[in-house]
Parts: sequence; C-alpha cells; structure tokens
Amino acid sequence: MLTVPELETLSKEIRDFLVQSITSTGGHFGANLGVVELSVALHYVFNSPVDRIVWDVGHQAYVHKILTGRKEQFPTLRQFHGLAGFPKRSESPHDAFGVGHASTSISAALGMAIARDLRGESHHVVAVIGDGAMTGGMAFEALNHAGHLKKRLLVILNDNEMSISPNVGAVSHYLTRLRADPYYGKLKTEFESLLKRIPAFGSRLANTAERLKDTLKYAMVPGILFEELGFSYFGPVPGHDVGQVIQLLSQAKEMEGPVLLHVVTQKGKGYASAEAAPDKLHSIGGAVVKPKSSAPSYTSVFGKTLVDLAKKDERIVAVTAAMLNSGLNEFVTEFPDRCFDVGIAEQHAATLCAGLATTGMRPIFSVYSTFLQRAYDQVIHDICIQKLPVVFAIDRAGLVGPDGETHQGAFDAAFLRAVPNLTIMMPKDEGELRHMLYTAFTLSGPVAVRFPREDGVGVPLDVPYETIPIGKAETLREGKDVALLALGPMVAIAENAALMLQDRGISAHVVNMRFVKPIDEDALRELALRNMPMITIEEGTVKGGLGSAVLEYFALQKLSCTVYPLGLPDRFIEHGSRPELLHQVGLTSEHIAQIAISLVEQQQGQKWANRKTAGR
Amino acid sequence: MLTVPELETLSKEIRDFLVQSITSTGGHFGANLGVVELSVALHYVFNSPVDRIVWDVGHQAYVHKILTGRKEQFPTLRQFHGLAGFPKRSESPHDAFGVGHASTSISAALGMAIARDLRGESHHVVAVIGDGAMTGGMAFEALNHAGHLKKRLLVILNDNEMSISPNVGAVSHYLTRLRADPYYGKLKTEFESLLKRIPAFGSRLANTAERLKDTLKYAMVPGILFEELGFSYFGPVPGHDVGQVIQLLSQAKEMEGPVLLHVVTQKGKGYASAEAAPDKLHSIGGAVVKPKSSAPSYTSVFGKTLVDLAKKDERIVAVTAAMLNSGLNEFVTEFPDRCFDVGIAEQHAATLCAGLATTGMRPIFSVYSTFLQRAYDQVIHDICIQKLPVVFAIDRAGLVGPDGETHQGAFDAAFLRAVPNLTIMMPKDEGELRHMLYTAFTLSGPVAVRFPREDGVGVPLDVPYETIPIGKAETLREGKDVALLALGPMVAIAENAALMLQDRGISAHVVNMRFVKPIDEDALRELALRNMPMITIEEGTVKGGLGSAVLEYFALQKLSCTVYPLGLPDRFIEHGSRPELLHQVGLTSEHIAQIAISLVEQQQGQKWANRKTAGR
Repeated sequence: MLTVPELETLSKEIRDFLVQSITSTGGHFGANLGVVELSVALHYVFNSPVDRIVWDVGHQAYVHKILTGRKEQFPTLRQFHGLAGFPKRSESPHDAFGVGHASTSISAALGMAIARDLRGESHHVVAVIGDGAMTGGMAFEALNHAGHLKKRLLVILNDNEMSISPNVGAVSHYLTRLRADPYYGKLKTEFESLLKRIPAFGSRLANTAERLKDTLKYAMVPGILFEELGFSYFGPVPGHDVGQVIQLLSQAKEMEGPVLLHVVTQKGKGYASAEAAPDKLHSIGGAVVKPKSSAPSYTSVFGKTLVDLAKKDERIVAVTAAMLNSGLNEFVTEFPDRCFDVGIAEQHAATLCAGLATTGMRPIFSVYSTFLQRAYDQVIHDICIQKLPVVFAIDRAGLVGPDGETHQGAFDAAFLRAVPNLTIMMPKDEGELRHMLYTAFTLSGPVAVRFPREDGVGVPLDVPYETIPIGKAETLREGKDVALLALGPMVAIAENAALMLQDRGISAHVVNMRFVKPIDEDALRELALRNMPMITIEEGTVKGGLGSAVLEYFALQKLSCTVYPLGLPDRFIEHGSRPELLHQVGLTSEHIAQIAISLVEQQQGQKWANRKTAGR
Repeated sequence: MLTVPELETLSKEIRDFLVQSITSTGGHFGANLGVVELSVALHYVFNSPVDRIVWDVGHQAYVHKILTGRKEQFPTLRQFHGLAGFPKRSESPHDAFGVGHASTSISAALGMAIARDLRGESHHVVAVIGDGAMTGGMAFEALNHAGHLKKRLLVILNDNEMSISPNVGAVSHYLTRLRADPYYGKLKTEFESLLKRIPAFGSRLANTAERLKDTLKYAMVPGILFEELGFSYFGPVPGHDVGQVIQLLSQAKEMEGPVLLHVVTQKGKGYASAEAAPDKLHSIGGAVVKPKSSAPSYTSVFGKTLVDLAKKDERIVAVTAAMLNSGLNEFVTEFPDRCFDVGIAEQHAATLCAGLATTGMRPIFSVYSTFLQRAYDQVIHDICIQKLPVVFAIDRAGLVGPDGETHQGAFDAAFLRAVPNLTIMMPKDEGELRHMLYTAFTLSGPVAVRFPREDGVGVPLDVPYETIPIGKAETLREGKDVALLALGPMVAIAENAALMLQDRGISAHVVNMRFVKPIDEDALRELALRNMPMITIEEGTVKGGLGSAVLEYFALQKLSCTVYPLGLPDRFIEHGSRPELLHQVGLTSEHIAQIAISLVEQQQGQKWANRKTAGR
C-alpha cells in the first residue's frame, strides 16, 4: 500500500503528465486536472473493476484511464483508432459504463447495485457526478429512486462550481451555501436566514410558524436536500487533499444505503491558465488540430447573426442548456435579460421555449444535435403538436470528430423529420446560415436550422438578409447525366465531385437541397421527368434522413426513378478527425463521383438493353 | 362574487355532473373528482385566460373545462371530433398550454412568467402539477431554474399520494412525511429522526456533528426541500376545503418570487368506488367503448408471458415508469424484488436498464410508445451505443384512440429505426407476441418489441415458444400481382384486402414483415425480381418508418421496383376511436385494395406500353 505522501507524489506526477499530454493531443483539460486526487483516492479505496466506478459525462476520466493501464496510449487520445476521450466498455473492463452525455451515472450505478443485491454479491458501486450534471433531470430521477430503494450506493458529487458554463440553478446556489460552510461553523447565520424565509402572512399555518420562530431554535443539517431524498450526506470535503478524501471514502464504503459524498474540487487545478479561465479551458484543441482557417465558424456566425436579429426584434430570446460558450457569448453580453442558461436540462429548455412562444415571444434554443436527443419528446409534445414558433439552432449537426460515438450529430435529421409541423433546414455555407436564421424567425411554426461543427467557407457576410423560400432547393449547377442532391457541407463536396465527373465526360447537376422538410417536390419531380439518376448526399444517418425523404416522395407520387441515398451507415461512428471519418464512411467527392459513374453506366446499360429489346 | 357556501354547492354540482358524464362517456375519473374544489378555487381567485393556468398532464382538467364554457360538449368527450381529454390550445383560450405527458407544466409556466416580466405585464402564471408528475426529471429541472430566476410563479403541488400507480421515490416519502404533519405539530418527532440520521462515525466532520447533537436543537422547516430549491413553500392545505384553498391561493397570489403551494387531495373524492380503488379508476372506458372481445389484450398477453419467461430465467427484471398497471401487475406480485417502478421517469428507467444489463441481467422496460420519446437519448447513448441487451416492451404502438395527439404511438418505429444496433419487431397477433418476447431475451443486444393497444385476435396461447429468426418475414399468402408487406395489426387488414382483391381477379401476396429492423432483405429482393409492385402497410408515420426501410433497401441495392408506403400521414392524429381514425388515415382493407388495383393497372399499362414500343 502506498502512503498518503506517496499518493500525493503520484498525483503530482499524473498532473504533470496530463498537462504535457493534453497540451500536445488536445482534449478535456480542466475537468481532469480537477479530479486527480479524487481519482487516485477512488482507485486506492476501491477495487476496480470488481467495484464499479461510473463516471458521469466521462470527460474527467483521463486520470482513471491512466491509473488503469492506458497511460501509454495517451499520445493517441481522441484520435482515429486511438484512445477514446470518454470511458468506453469496449476499451477496458475498468470502464464500467460508457458515457459522454451528462447525468446518466446514478441511473446506471443504481442498476448495477440492484443487480449486485439480487445476486447476493458484495462489491461496491460508485457514481462520480459533477455539480453541472446534477442539474439534469435524470440525475434527480435517479436520486429519487435510489433514495427510495435504499440500496448501498456511493454517489460522489464532484463540485467544481462549474459545468461547461458557470452553473445556474437553485441547486447550484444551494451547493454554494454548503461549500461556504464546510465545517458546520455558521449554523447561526443559516438559522437567521432560515427564519427570514418563513413567510410572514396571517394564515393559521403562518401563525403557527411565527410562534415556532419564537419558541424553537432552528438549524440546518448540511446536505438536507440530499438527506430529504434519502441519502446520507457527507461533506463537503476538500477534494485535493488526497488523505482526507481517502479517509471519507473509506468511511462511506462501510455505510449501508445510499450515500452522497460532496467533494469540492477546482477545475484546472495545478495549471495556472486553466484555473483562471476554467470555462475557456474546458476542452482544448491541442497541436494535432488543423490550423485555424480564415473563415469564421458556423457557430460564431450563428452567434453574431442572432445578436443582430435580436437587436431588431425584441421578441427574440435565447435559451441554452449549459452551453453559453457555444455561440451565445455575445448574446448574453448584449442581452443578459433575454438569455437563459437553464443548466444541463434540455427537456426543460425546450418546454421553456414552448411556454415563451405561447406568449408571442420568439425563443431560440441553441443546442447540439446530439443533446437535442434529450428533448425529443418535448419537441414533439410541447412544441410541434402546438405548432409553436420555436427556433432550434442545432449546432454540430453531422460528424463532430474527436468526441466520437456519443457526440456525432448523426440522427437529428432522421428523428426530427418524422415530426409533423416542423421545418428543417441546413445551409450550404455560413452566409446561407444567416439567411436561414433570418427566415426562421419569419415563420409561424417550429423551425430547426442545423449547422456543422466547422469553419465556414469564407463567403461575404455583410450582405442584406434574404428570405429563403420554404421548401425550395437551389440549383447550383445544371447538368444532364446525374443529379447530386446535397445538404449542408456536403454541397461543396458534391460540387467538387461534379468537377471530377466533368473530367470523365459526365455532366452532373448539383442541387443545394436546403430543406430536409419540406423537401422541394417540384425540383424533384422535374429531375425525375428528366430521367436523371440522383444521389442524395447528407452527413447524417441514411436511415430516415434526406435520402429517405426523397425516396418516399417519389414512391408516394408513383414516379419511377433511380435514387442512391448516401450518408452515414447504420453503425455508430467512432472518434477521429472529420476528414478521416468522412473518408471512412464514403462522404467524399471521389466516392460520390464513383457512385455517379456507376449509376450513369447502369442507366446507359438499361437504355442500351431497352433499345436492343425494342430492335428485336 | 359567490360565497364560500355557494362555491361548495357549485363543487358538489360539478362532482355530480362529472360522475354522471364520465360514467357515460368514459375518461379520466379519479383525478378529476380529486380537483373539483381546487379548480373552482383557482378560477375564483385567478382571472383566466389573462392569468395563465397550466395543467400538468391535463387529464385532471375536466373541471377546468366545465368552468370555462365547455360543459355542453361533455357528451362528446374524447370522441372523434369531440371535446379533447386534455387541455388543448386550439380548443379554448383558457387552455394556456396543451398537455398529455407528465412534468411539463413548470417549464411552460416559467416561460410564460419570463415573457410577462420581459414585457412588463402583471398577470399571474400558475402550474398545477401532481405528486406523480413531480417525480419526472424535467419538473426538477424546471424547479431548479425557477428557484434560480426568482420569477413570480405559483406552482400548485396537487398531492393525491398517487400518480397512475401508487407513487414511488424518495420525494413521495418526503411528501408523506409532510402530509403526516400538517400543522408543524410533530416537530419533536422530526427532530428525533433527524438526529438519528446524522452519521455517527469518527471523522472530524462527524465529530463536529456529534457535538452539535448535544449543543443545538434541530428542527425541520416543512417543505425545506422546496425551500432549498428557492421556492416559498406553503402547506399542506386540505384540498377539498374550498374556503381554505381560496384563502391560501389569495395569499400566494400576493407573493413575489416562486411559490409552491402543497394541496392534499383525494383521487376519486366523492365517488365511493373510485376512492376505494383509485388506481383502477384512473381512467374508465365508459358506455361508448366497444364490448370486450373474448381474446385477451396484447398488454395482458405481454404480462403473462413475461411472468412465464421470468420463472425460467431469474436474470429477467422488469422496469416501468409509473405504469405497473399496464401489464406488470402479475409480474410485481410474482417477483416483487425483480420489478422496479421508478416513477414518471422514463430517462432514468432506460438507463437503469442499461446499468442492469452491464451486469448480465436481462432487464425489460415496459413503456408506451409515446412515453419512450422521453428516453430517446438514453436508448441511443446508454443502451444502443453499448449494445446492451435491454428489451423494450413498447405498448400502444400505433393509434391509441381517445387520448389523441399526445398519446398516439406514431413515431417509435421511425425514431428507433435510425438507431444502430437495435432490433425492432412487431407481432401480427398475440401468439406471435409470445414468441417475439421469448426471442428477444435470446439476443445479445437491444431489442424493441412493439405491440398495439388492442385485444388480440384469439389465437391459441398454450403452444411452446418458438424462436423467430431475426430479420425474417413470414409469407402468409402467395400471390403474383401485388405484394402487401404489413406490420403488426395491419397484417390482418392486409389479408382481408387480399380477399377483396381476389374477388377482383387480382392475386395478392401477403407478407407479415415482423421486423422493422433488420428488414428481410432476401424476401424483398425476391419480390423485386418477381417484378411485383408492393405496398408497405404500417400503423406509424410513413416518414422514416417501415416503408422507408424498404425503399432505402431497394435504392441502396439499385433494384428498381414499385413500392407504395402506406401509413400515418405527416400530421398529428387527433382523438377518436381506433376504427374511425384508421378509416380517416386510409389504413383500411378497402383503401389498400384500391391502391393495389391502381398499382397493378399502372404496371399493366407499362407492360402494355413496353410491348407496344417493342413491337414498333
């Protein structure tokens, strides 16, 4: 067994290794520096993988990975075929649960604890959840259930006063109060403030309370919020004191029933610039990331456009689920009263928008594609059934790269397309993004504007806004042999494919589809009548996506034509750079050209065969 | 202004009307009888529609509807083109927000309160939420946000100790404690129990606590859970005392900031049999419902089969989100330790299953199609990415009838089909349901077994289990002119259409598709080679559903053939009886036969045209 001083040395070495390694490869920075001692203590006290450690979100699991035999793989972190940025069951038996999205750990851990007890096993199950993830409703659902079942389960609340953006919400304030009072020292102050909160009006209840004010001394038990939910609460404990953390963990390990251990850590601990600006250093690109292009990112164009539109229309309000930094920084500075960060709470965010929209406001929910999955029912039930004019600004639609499976924006076009009353669009460049956002606010129903995690292509942005006609595609290149129907960033790739095809003597027609829903039926019908084989090209799952929309249209119209749907295959796409992944799945100009050639040849073959039959 | 005794009389009259009306039309019973006085008081104290009243779930809004001019329409309740069973914005300006699913009201109301304050308006916003809906994570997300924003907002916790099933969860226990102590009378007992909960081990923290035990008197402020979340808590108040409720509402109306008023009501109040068995009388069929068929419902066959399978495999555990009564009654009686009702918490339910599955258990999540929308991200992120063997028993897939838009199981096939690693099946009858459930537990990955809200067709159920080959369809009728590819209850309708077509001299091929994913590619290829036009028939949205799957397959295989995708149109389907709705959307044997005839004629026309061309 190592001694506490030895563990402190180990922690220091790990921290040095992390700083060196992540600044070179990129990755999540602050969160991992914040949990060095906690991770060391967890692996000291518990016996992974027999004892299960479930990391919530998992971007803070680098130290865990280092401690479980994966240090040598860190140079490949988040790279194609390299070490994943999140725990992954297929990567190590020590990764008890695969994660990436927030607030899942208590549910998963409770499932493991239930199974353990059913089987009469005796190992420990630990969930490590940040204060940000604790704002997610499913964490509460799980606490509520765990407190009811009374299974032996340790939940470690890793409180760094910070999720990806600074925390919001009443629970956050509550934790702040707990932190401020680590050794029960200020009970009197609590008592005073508590007394003030007792309502002072004249009902019988209130009279009783008034009497109680005089006759009883009140005091707060720290952590009573968790105690009331059925947990035994311990803490807060300073999370960078490895000795103290080990002591508390060892004690918690001996407890029966659900225990919540409140550990206070500092994001970016031990790295000066990360400590100073923890939200900026949540994740860093590292040296492997491509050089910054001169064009602004779609995200930043979105942010600037929204500020611009909101200046002219005071009904516009913006909502984010703990992602202010993704496009809304300017907005919140310009319109602090019209910007709402609700915590990691996508369900609430969507329905909050619905409530706002009933009043005539024009809410926009800025959300990543993959996180919108959390609000699917709310999109359907609270927004689209009621045709409420909520705008979804869906960032990171398509492949996201190093964050891998859990973060690819692969499904939103498919799952949103099934929902009635929703308009879904995606721009071919950052200029069109401006026009689409402008157009979205002119509509009377719900609209989704999707855009990629990419830099724009460098088009001028100082042009007047245009209204994009709903459901109208844009023909970019007239051709006669094959039609390339592309969406979003695939438009440029299709245009490039058309050039390649031109060299092969094939005349490709290129359409910027613009809309996943409604699709441009007139344009499709015309192409069908011209008897052109078509390729739909999208950076989303083929199943249910744009290609399906085109196929369904032709089928319902009983129009016979050849359509090849190109998009993401029916498997989860791992981490890697976007070009590597696009190449892997065949979303390249070369592959498009190949398919086009084969379709043209097939059609010529058929024509030839028909002629032959006709001549017989 | 009416006096309190007059309001009491009014309440009695409304209660009598409700009993009479609902026993005749059917509808949600207990919940409405429970909120008569609360609804009367709300409309007395607040000025709807200027003041906004948002009903959570909304099955308890009948009294509200009666009070807002819709009494005369009650004979049409939940009937086709009649009064909706839930609040609906299109039905009345008094329905501030459309609902149906639980836990949305605080989010929507907070949105309205934010908009009010931005505009400098002064009306009130009230959310009425049951104790069951309070277990949903999004309600917590909204409380957390509302407590943070401090907007003026009244949340009425309508605590009837009962959601659809008896409530579970720590919050429920908490409310029980509050109820037991309505006038702060048992502070001493609380104090004692609190002292016991302070951990007694030897850390410095605990020592401090020990000292505090001796030196301070503790007491609980009722409602501190809500107080800690930033709400002013009032209550509990007896909810059938209209005078007291009015008094408290009037006081709450004058408060600034968020207020939570805890009202204790009794489900089924005033109707003896409903009071005695509130969960049984949650919703009643009424006289208009069709006579009970002799065949058991799919739901009951599911329940019995699960018990049977669980007897043979002790790894099987069942999870439900407050819907024990839907198929799991026998299971929970037989295996109380292996059945988990998590509250109205679908997100947690799904991920709890994921956690269970990591340990080798075989969890099954019994859930309605429409409620699975709440767990979409968890299906993707926690279960399918990790290929965990969770079985989803998806009840009420397809049209559900009188519950309308919010409850139709229209989307699950489409939104699930986009998710990799998931097998999706649906039986043609209740016998096949048994085999599919049996088969589901033999698979090593996630499986969804969908079934309708219907009685079965009456096939024998005492046959041995069979393994259904994955991705294999079943040909029920050989034909040569047109192929009907049907799913679930549509199979019988397709078979009937085939008989109609036979009378017209058309030979229809009928396939029970069984799988939405993977589809039977061999069978499809063979049909294509036989040059048969096909109709896919499903009781789900055409966009992204089974029809799309078939179209995508042929498109990717570059196989040219005619497929007509028949299913639900791209709009939300209102309430009505299932036969009325099926007729409206064209999912009838007659319509299928019509489409088949037109496809056959079209094809014969083409053949004739081809022959003509060939002969030229």
